[in-house]
Amino acid sequence: MDRTDATEDSGSDSPPAPPALGIGMIGYAFMGAAHSQGWRTVSRVFDLPLRPVLAAIAGRDPLAVRAAARRHGWAAAETDWRALIARDDVHLVDICAPGDLHAEIAVAALAAGKHVLCEKPLANTVAEAEAMCAAAARARREGRIAMVGFNYRRVPAVAHARRLIAEGRLGALRHLRFTYLQDWLVDPGAPLTWRLQREHAGSGALGDLGAHIVDLAQYLSGERLTGVSALAETFVTERPLLAAATGGGRGIPSGGLGPVTVDDAALFNGRLASGALASFEATRMASGRKNALRFEINGERGSLAFDLERLNELSFHDHTEPAASSGFRRILVTEADHPYLQAWWPPGHALGYEHTFTHQARDLIEAIARGTAPEPGFEDGLQVQRVLAAVEESARGNAVYIPVPQG
Amino acid sequence: MDRTDATEDSGSDSPPAPPALGIGMIGYAFMGAAHSQGWRTVSRVFDLPLRPVLAAIAGRDPLAVRAAARRHGWAAAETDWRALIARDDVHLVDICAPGDLHAEIAVAALAAGKHVLCEKPLANTVAEAEAMCAAAARARREGRIAMVGFNYRRVPAVAHARRLIAEGRLGALRHLRFTYLQDWLVDPGAPLTWRLQREHAGSGALGDLGAHIVDLAQYLSGERLTGVSALAETFVTERPLLAAATGGGRGIPSGGLGPVTVDDAALFNGRLASGALASFEATRMASGRKNALRFEINGERGSLAFDLERLNELSFHDHTEPAASSGFRRILVTEADHPYLQAWWPPGHALGYEHTFTHQARDLIEAIARGTAPEPGFEDGLQVQRVLAAVEESARGNAVYIPVPQG
Amino acid sequence: MDRTDATEDSGSDSPPAPPALGIGMIGYAFMGAAHSQGWRTVSRVFDLPLRPVLAAIAGRDPLAVRAAARRHGWAAAETDWRALIARDDVHLVDICAPGDLHAEIAVAALAAGKHVLCEKPLANTVAEAEAMCAAAARARREGRIAMVGFNYRRVPAVAHARRLIAEGRLGALRHLRFTYLQDWLVDPGAPLTWRLQREHAGSGALGDLGAHIVDLAQYLSGERLTGVSALAETFVTERPLLAAATGGGRGIPSGGLGPVTVDDAALFNGRLASGALASFEATRMASGRKNALRFEINGERGSLAFDLERLNELSFHDHTEPAASSGFRRILVTEADHPYLQAWWPPGHALGYEHTFTHQARDLIEAIARGTAPEPGFEDGLQVQRVLAAVEESARGNAVYIPVPQG
Amino acid sequence: MDRTDATEDSGSDSPPAPPALGIGMIGYAFMGAAHSQGWRTVSRVFDLPLRPVLAAIAGRDPLAVRAAARRHGWAAAETDWRALIARDDVHLVDICAPGDLHAEIAVAALAAGKHVLCEKPLANTVAEAEAMCAAAARARREGRIAMVGFNYRRVPAVAHARRLIAEGRLGALRHLRFTYLQDWLVDPGAPLTWRLQREHAGSGALGDLGAHIVDLAQYLSGERLTGVSALAETFVTERPLLAAATGGGRGIPSGGLGPVTVDDAALFNGRLASGALASFEATRMASGRKNALRFEINGERGSLAFDLERLNELSFHDHTEPAASSGFRRILVTEADHPYLQAWWPPGHALGYEHTFTHQARDLIEAIARGTAPEPGFEDGLQVQRVLAAVEESARGNAVYIPVPQG
Repeated sequence: MDRTDATEDSGSDSPPAPPALGIGMIGYAFMGAAHSQGWRTVSRVFDLPLRPVLAAIAGRDPLAVRAAARRHGWAAAETDWRALIARDDVHLVDICAPGDLHAEIAVAALAAGKHVLCEKPLANTVAEAEAMCAAAARARREGRIAMVGFNYRRVPAVAHARRLIAEGRLGALRHLRFTYLQDWLVDPGAPLTWRLQREHAGSGALGDLGAHIVDLAQYLSGERLTGVSALAETFVTERPLLAAATGGGRGIPSGGLGPVTVDDAALFNGRLASGALASFEATRMASGRKNALRFEINGERGSLAFDLERLNELSFHDHTEPAASSGFRRILVTEADHPYLQAWWPPGHALGYEHTFTHQARDLIEAIARGTAPEPGFEDGLQVQRVLAAVEESARGNAVYIPVPQG
Repeated sequence: MDRTDATEDSGSDSPPAPPALGIGMIGYAFMGAAHSQGWRTVSRVFDLPLRPVLAAIAGRDPLAVRAAARRHGWAAAETDWRALIARDDVHLVDICAPGDLHAEIAVAALAAGKHVLCEKPLANTVAEAEAMCAAAARARREGRIAMVGFNYRRVPAVAHARRLIAEGRLGALRHLRFTYLQDWLVDPGAPLTWRLQREHAGSGALGDLGAHIVDLAQYLSGERLTGVSALAETFVTERPLLAAATGGGRGIPSGGLGPVTVDDAALFNGRLASGALASFEATRMASGRKNALRFEINGERGSLAFDLERLNELSFHDHTEPAASSGFRRILVTEADHPYLQAWWPPGHALGYEHTFTHQARDLIEAIARGTAPEPGFEDGLQVQRVLAAVEESARGNAVYIPVPQG
Repeated sequence: MDRTDATEDSGSDSPPAPPALGIGMIGYAFMGAAHSQGWRTVSRVFDLPLRPVLAAIAGRDPLAVRAAARRHGWAAAETDWRALIARDDVHLVDICAPGDLHAEIAVAALAAGKHVLCEKPLANTVAEAEAMCAAAARARREGRIAMVGFNYRRVPAVAHARRLIAEGRLGALRHLRFTYLQDWLVDPGAPLTWRLQREHAGSGALGDLGAHIVDLAQYLSGERLTGVSALAETFVTERPLLAAATGGGRGIPSGGLGPVTVDDAALFNGRLASGALASFEATRMASGRKNALRFEINGERGSLAFDLERLNELSFHDHTEPAASSGFRRILVTEADHPYLQAWWPPGHALGYEHTFTHQARDLIEAIARGTAPEPGFEDGLQVQRVLAAVEESARGNAVYIPVPQG
Repeated sequence: MDRTDATEDSGSDSPPAPPALGIGMIGYAFMGAAHSQGWRTVSRVFDLPLRPVLAAIAGRDPLAVRAAARRHGWAAAETDWRALIARDDVHLVDICAPGDLHAEIAVAALAAGKHVLCEKPLANTVAEAEAMCAAAARARREGRIAMVGFNYRRVPAVAHARRLIAEGRLGALRHLRFTYLQDWLVDPGAPLTWRLQREHAGSGALGDLGAHIVDLAQYLSGERLTGVSALAETFVTERPLLAAATGGGRGIPSGGLGPVTVDDAALFNGRLASGALASFEATRMASGRKNALRFEINGERGSLAFDLERLNELSFHDHTEPAASSGFRRILVTEADHPYLQAWWPPGHALGYEHTFTHQARDLIEAIARGTAPEPGFEDGLQVQRVLAAVEESARGNAVYIPVPQG
């Protein structure tokens, strides 16, 4: 044999190709690009029970959505998300639209019998999130899966941290310390995009960054936050208006100023169900910090530390070792028996940010094929939303302690 | 000339020796050893207007205090601190006794016309601290100096950080983030020493560790905290009793358990006068962290970060540089033009913990010789005490926001 | 408009799709997977003048090559590399086969009018490399491009380092210090794969790892090595034979032992044309180091440091700053104006190892479209080969200094 | 009892004071200050069998030596080192003079029945070092101790590293990698002090910095170097002359230039007796590196890494752990069961550079009291000297491999 068409699988020597899973994605800005990379790559790297097909992408601007489809490899483009949901070749709806659209789209997609992946935060309000959870529960009974996109759970070092905690390597937890620090709003001349407007974004650093660290705290500990006390601040209260706001924060300044209606920073402390103390800080005003999602967790038997700016590393201190030879060790989380790593490169060859979306796609496809509950499901997203709402209520009450409803 | 007595300064070629300043120290445990090292070393390294003489040390146990005097180089030993204060050869009283004795000793020493250096925290209560401040103000009018021993201001990297902030290199401050993490109480079998008893220690991690970071936040920012919201926790509520408590936490377990009456950890957020947000955590339960006094300060024009476990280093980010070449730089604070460094070793030759006491001694001697106000004075200690009291009140009220009285 | 086929570009509102560039790849082990990821991704991220099409892949084992084609997205599979070269839909031949095949394939591909990308090291001998260079020079006159795959030049931090040096930010260079440390041969039970056999691999750590750091030293400095002195060592001289050697080092032990005929480690010092001193270490026996390609370069005006295990970071010291505020700064090389980063994610969102192949694909496609000389061209690969040969000769002569022929 | 003279030990409750050991020190520049601090402090921190007394200091300039005596606490000053040796109250001669005086002073002091501590490098030539060893051997038979001052063996982290290697935690050693990088000669305007003149300093970076790392390599491995291959370079061949050279490199430029007759940098590779490979770099031209004595040692079972700029830390990788949880751990070498630490502060409280001299003083006093061989003895210093001589011979022969005589 000299030549063969590799896409033909008719030969008796080939395993049959797995069934297709048609993906329909709504939104094509930053998250759309990242999700596309995940969907395109996942079956090249992992052995999967279903084969994702990039069926269609939806966006309001016809030219832009077609350009995005070509760029990212989607077979078709839609300008109405309802049309995308209605397509027979779409089995899973991936929601990368702004937060104020999440609930409506997700409920409609689930009602139409689609699986759903929804970007975080799940919604802009607890009420919306509750409606989404109810829809997800109904759909679940018919075998549909609804996952929320807390992609940082899929950093191998974070997943490995969860594994170590679940194995009891930290013992009873005492302290959790989370920050998510960025600096793209330090400049008072940064424009007033939709992310700075409450009606579109719901909140500021809190929903954008704080949602991630609240989810990670609950995921890593295996516990829920029971109450919080918060301070929030908007340091720059007016910013340049854009003539026409565009998705990625780009646009032409109009010459005027408009009010910033979300928080620049939120600082909150809380308690986990076990009594452990947890602290959180989300800000876009920490000069020099670009993507510093950091945590440290201290338990009776050990500690863990992580920094997203060095995402291939996990620091682990084993408190059961003799003091003379103990210390925080830097685990390079690139070994074949680390989470997700079997499929990738040899030890020491780093992964990047976008791999989290590939891993998320894998986990979701596995859950769909097996019919198991996805992690994190919409109820996890709802619980995060309840924490964020409690944080906002506490901040309005100048740090008054607000219990988090336990659903 | 072949031989000369180096201690004779009668020759016309020698500058006259500076006048003596007799030091009397009360207490001889950990802090006593560290202060002794500072007093012994300071005139060997710095050119000083006064020559400190280790005149006398006081402690209750006659054998122990004499042994301490011999070990640390004190000329005499006293078993009654009042006798020490009464000595003519003592011009400065250095208080290293437990916190519940600070007020009585300091007020008596100042009344007796002595200068005073008092270990931190200034006192166990705001009322005590106010009485001490009043005494210090009276004594100040007669040329006596009263300083509180927040020695970490004297880490060269910390002093350099203050200099950079004072020069405006950070611009308007947005965030201050302080932790002081230790782990010597992680083991539930650690004994119930005086440091775990409210009547002696006043508070737990809060007064022991939190006092340092509250002082540093106010020192570095040049601002005061205006209010706080706090959570506190005692994770291990009973610990082994000692048959006879001894100074250093050593002793023989008695077989029984007694109640821990102070906090293991305190977590609090607050606001500075300028509106900057500040977070604080003090704990002795952070497994693997030995002496992790860490801070990061973010301003409009730059940021600083520090970790006491790497005390010769300061991280500085200059936000006014082009993004492509900016980043946190690790300044090795061992250059001749860094604070205190002119007197020490060549660049790159590290200093240690105890040097802070040598530097403190220098600054105090300079203040006495010049008659200038010491930094930090008792009023700074009082202001820290007010913050600690507000933290305790807030923690009792489950994080209710407590304004800090501004004195 | 509600629905559109995104792959149709006939509408008047769309720019025409760029012309196709058919890629044919030979080899499908580790490098094949990495290159495939690069070819698949490059046009999704960068705006390119040519559109790479994964036309065909070649490998000897029919089942394996077809599986690889399906896995990695190649349209066709060949079992004879000559057949791949002969295909009309292949315009560029990407050589990922073992080093002993490079010369024959590359010469044939260039003679057939194809562009060539050849994995490093260029060849197993200088003579082979010279023949390849001659073929590349002939092909160049007919507009064909030949590039050697030193992919680490395409780490953004490395490319940024080159930019800083080229701008003169380091001044005259004094020292270059390169190590490439791995540890997968520490275990004496690791099997005897083709990489440990001189007839296939040419050399051991020297060619595998040393080739990268020699290339980087010459690339970053913009200078050539003029001579070297080397020590080499094989610490484990016999290893378990495999019943049947397979590409990736996997296979079934046969029960016997066979001789290791390449170096485990090579250590060499040399001089650059300018007189700067350079040191190199390549080893696969450095326990705990997984992929530690590290360098530090010291010049009269500044220094740079890098570690491939933290590939998103570059350390830079500017010696022209005042000593009190200078230090190595950690530049997070994820800003839009860093090399290659305009196309990727927001600041602080890390890239990984495989991105180097995407960047390599971009640079090669740009060179083909523009008809410009590729960097690094085969002559760069030949010069590295000359250094490796001099290193081997020096090691055989127990560190005797060997001048490197300057081509 | 109210008052007691602490220096009186006549009471029946006090242990008798240990006998005095009179110290006489020659030289009072940088090393003199550091040694003085060690002698003054050692009995305040450690329980010692002999009590060091700072009896006399010698230097040529009468005014300067008397000032140094007063500053550093020496009871008497001498302007002739022979007079110092002749003093009855001097039992130990501490040689901090330049290297060209070491041999004459040490031989005379040993002949006069004194113990000797000699700063490194032991001498400027192998012949001098051999004479010193012979004198030390004779004196040893009469109970006199001769130690060479490789003070970095006394960094607790380094001593702990030696302990781990001696316990077999690294297994068979494969690689040793040592650098000692400083940058105080980067500026071509730095003056021509005695340290840059062969007749006084013997060599440049090689003897000053290289001697330390050669000693540490042999100390840590417990093996000797058997041969070396070296390159050396003087990048700046002429520097400003000083009108009158002074000890510390200070002085007034004369306006002229003079030749630098020592190396700026030396780069050498070698083999240990076991076959392990070792690399060394000593330079004073590494911009941004202030005191970067760094090593990494890789063995079959683990690795160690250290940086003198972070001298309280030791990195340790245990290769026998499961790959998924292994990594270099940062041991904070401040625990009570680390070398020398029992006597110092609580965990996490850093030591500094000067502590190495206090530890050296302790170890020497213990050796004298016990009559045991000191480590490192003069024979260790001689062996280092032989390596340095082989390095210089190799560098003159353009990297020709020179076996090191094994004494």
